[in-house]
Amino acid sequence: MRGNSYAVILAGGSGSRLWPLSRTLRPKQLLPLNGDQTLLQQTASRVLNHVDAGRLLTVTHQDHKFEVKGQLAELDAALPASVLAEPCARNTLPAIAWAVWEIFKQDPDALIGVFPSDHAISDEHSFLSAWRSAELAAKQGYLVLLGITPTEPATGYGYIHPGASLNLDGAANRVLNVSRFVEKPDFDNAKRFVADGYLWNSGMFVFRAGDFMRMLAQHQPAIHQAITAMSGASDVKACYGDLPNLSIDYGLAEKAGKVAVVPVAMGWNDLGSWESIYLHRGKDEAGNMTQGDVLTLDTQNSLLWTSHGLLATLGLNNIAVIQTADATLVCDRSRSEDIRQIVAEVQKNHPHLTETHLTVHRPWGVYTILEEGPNFKIKCIVVNPGAKLSMQMHKHRSEHWVVVSGIAKITNGTQEIQLEPNQSTYIPKTHRHRLENPGSFPLQIIEVQCGDYVGEDDIVRFDDTYDRALSQ
Amino acid sequence: MRGNSYAVILAGGSGSRLWPLSRTLRPKQLLPLNGDQTLLQQTASRVLNHVDAGRLLTVTHQDHKFEVKGQLAELDAALPASVLAEPCARNTLPAIAWAVWEIFKQDPDALIGVFPSDHAISDEHSFLSAWRSAELAAKQGYLVLLGITPTEPATGYGYIHPGASLNLDGAANRVLNVSRFVEKPDFDNAKRFVADGYLWNSGMFVFRAGDFMRMLAQHQPAIHQAITAMSGASDVKACYGDLPNLSIDYGLAEKAGKVAVVPVAMGWNDLGSWESIYLHRGKDEAGNMTQGDVLTLDTQNSLLWTSHGLLATLGLNNIAVIQTADATLVCDRSRSEDIRQIVAEVQKNHPHLTETHLTVHRPWGVYTILEEGPNFKIKCIVVNPGAKLSMQMHKHRSEHWVVVSGIAKITNGTQEIQLEPNQSTYIPKTHRHRLENPGSFPLQIIEVQCGDYVGEDDIVRFDDTYDRALSQ
Repeated sequence: MRGNSYAVILAGGSGSRLWPLSRTLRPKQLLPLNGDQTLLQQTASRVLNHVDAGRLLTVTHQDHKFEVKGQLAELDAALPASVLAEPCARNTLPAIAWAVWEIFKQDPDALIGVFPSDHAISDEHSFLSAWRSAELAAKQGYLVLLGITPTEPATGYGYIHPGASLNLDGAANRVLNVSRFVEKPDFDNAKRFVADGYLWNSGMFVFRAGDFMRMLAQHQPAIHQAITAMSGASDVKACYGDLPNLSIDYGLAEKAGKVAVVPVAMGWNDLGSWESIYLHRGKDEAGNMTQGDVLTLDTQNSLLWTSHGLLATLGLNNIAVIQTADATLVCDRSRSEDIRQIVAEVQKNHPHLTETHLTVHRPWGVYTILEEGPNFKIKCIVVNPGAKLSMQMHKHRSEHWVVVSGIAKITNGTQEIQLEPNQSTYIPKTHRHRLENPGSFPLQIIEVQCGDYVGEDDIVRFDDTYDRALSQ
Repeated sequence: MRGNSYAVILAGGSGSRLWPLSRTLRPKQLLPLNGDQTLLQQTASRVLNHVDAGRLLTVTHQDHKFEVKGQLAELDAALPASVLAEPCARNTLPAIAWAVWEIFKQDPDALIGVFPSDHAISDEHSFLSAWRSAELAAKQGYLVLLGITPTEPATGYGYIHPGASLNLDGAANRVLNVSRFVEKPDFDNAKRFVADGYLWNSGMFVFRAGDFMRMLAQHQPAIHQAITAMSGASDVKACYGDLPNLSIDYGLAEKAGKVAVVPVAMGWNDLGSWESIYLHRGKDEAGNMTQGDVLTLDTQNSLLWTSHGLLATLGLNNIAVIQTADATLVCDRSRSEDIRQIVAEVQKNHPHLTETHLTVHRPWGVYTILEEGPNFKIKCIVVNPGAKLSMQMHKHRSEHWVVVSGIAKITNGTQEIQLEPNQSTYIPKTHRHRLENPGSFPLQIIEVQCGDYVGEDDIVRFDDTYDRALSQ
């Protein structure tokens, strides 16, 4: 038994500073930036050291729901069931309030830790120790933050001015009163804050469910009322858009009476830019951080990242290159904070390059667009074992399917057939059809679409395991 | 009538300094480096101002034969018939000797101009004028070179020391005796040569066919004997490898008695490195030379070239980026002469990336590899109007074909069928089959290969319009 500890992971962020690797539909927390696991998976793995899988809720945007579920399923089959999908982004307070309310209904005394999913933490032991200490303060009715011991006078984070110690019995870490929250400072103030022992606001909170709901009712009664009135998916869809865009810091922590902070040094890094990834990751003797198929000659102090194709460099210094299947960024490393400007330009002329990759994750697996022409599109489709696509129909395109590995169970009009590798079938337009992987290995098929229109929105769904809109 | 002028284009070169755009199977002369036409096409177009298409011969390596023919066919349907394909590279003298011999048999008095195909010439009028003046000297029995007026003390070219004028009547240009040939000099000597009025050796020669054959017999009797004994494709194949590797400069011009040079300034550029392409091409106000889908921000003096995908840059200066579908090079612009070192490294670990692109030109059209897995390969195949692939058979793979545009005539075992867009067929392994485009528009099909081996060498050819090896 692990007491009444619960965790909420916030996986709703979208970021453009890691473009072209990050896209709107594949933001930072869903990328493997410092190892094989994505930041979301690392966060969940870390949290599962302290809470059971059934007591971990994840809040994300509905556009990311299936990928979040897929990534969590790789860790524990129980996790996808407790993913809450926001119909629109409303900052952290509504997201946390919704998750806390779901837990509160089960256990008003739940001790809840809230964790963003887009940070790296290298010292897991220190993290868990700080969390446990924070829980001791939460049991006394405090809203407790984890405060990162600064390693530099950063201007990109909010700071916390700690006050007197709470002197909690049994806490492995110091737990201090919060005397003041400070917004992102300028460089001179940041230097002063670091010298004066201020802490970075990590966005990690620990509190008791009932205390949080009381604070919410007191300081944000409108949100409290809306959240506690929601009792189903349609309610969420109907009322979420009316909630205010509010952070837990501004909307609650700065207003609450009993607020504490646990200072912690745990190798925290927000990997918020290519430069911070460069600084965080290991480098070769020449100071190069490489990922993927990279070949360097006379190259120093550079970040060289390719997820598609060979990247060869000659005579470079302090350059960042990030290469993907459909877009490459080459920039001076010191300018990686200015990528937003490039992304804004790309957005104007090539919006799809900021939104999605050629490989798209779906609840049943992934597909990759291999080629597209005026009247055709070719996809490589991988269906997970046991998964099936929706029963669907296209008005404008026919589809030719060739199985290259695995077993396919196919409904084509009134027929049902099973195909093995090197077998193919044809789905005429307007035929209802469904693709399913009845096997225990991934099913890979090549799909050639032909028609006068081959856009993704030409789909009528009749039945879907994943509750996707049937009329879309 | 254009007298008895003939031209020989040398298209045998292979170069690695323009990697990753140039590959062994797609060398510099076959690339569009300074406009819509390739350097080969520009050379042929230029030459056709002075000779008829039936009097233009092109010599190339057999690996490039079909692409050379295809590129020439776009200019004039008569040109591909006179392409001579060398079974192996033997430098310029054997190539020129073979072409001259073919012309000599028709017309011993032919006035032949020999032109490399891997240079750009912006002043066509000056080129043609110099050629005509050279022909006047050739009529007097001279071996005549075009000598480029140097624009800088280049160390990468051979120099010609001109002597006294021939004082030819009617020549628009000065024609001078050659007093000495000089190998590529060091920088100090190059400066002296430029000051002393030396000329660059352009590799362009003009002479009378009979004079050339006599000089060849005198100075290189072994080559003369071998070439004049060849009387068919099998002879060429049998004896070409035994020819010495010899340039016309070293093997003939430096030994001959009557050698002249026509000095000419004609905007000549060998586009021999990315740096020379950068210097030659137009640039924007920031000094950037861009090609393809490029987006720049705070970027100066850079060469930015993409043939596949978006290339975005930020905060660069003096950088060259060349991006292709499967390999990208990023280098300091001043280091573009050192690309050979990178190519040597790539050769070790990824040899295919120095040999071929994902898009491969064939005599009947092109194919592009879209995806490859352990037991499958997907190609997009475009067959030119009226063209057909060989009758063939594969031992290890079956093929699924889907027509996406045009009309396909397909022989599949004993059956012959015709397919329209959105129709498909299946070619089981060991079936003899043939694909043909009977229409007047390009035929595009998607091919999904499945089998235990999907290498290009699993092919047995039974009949081929293009005389390719039937047993291979």
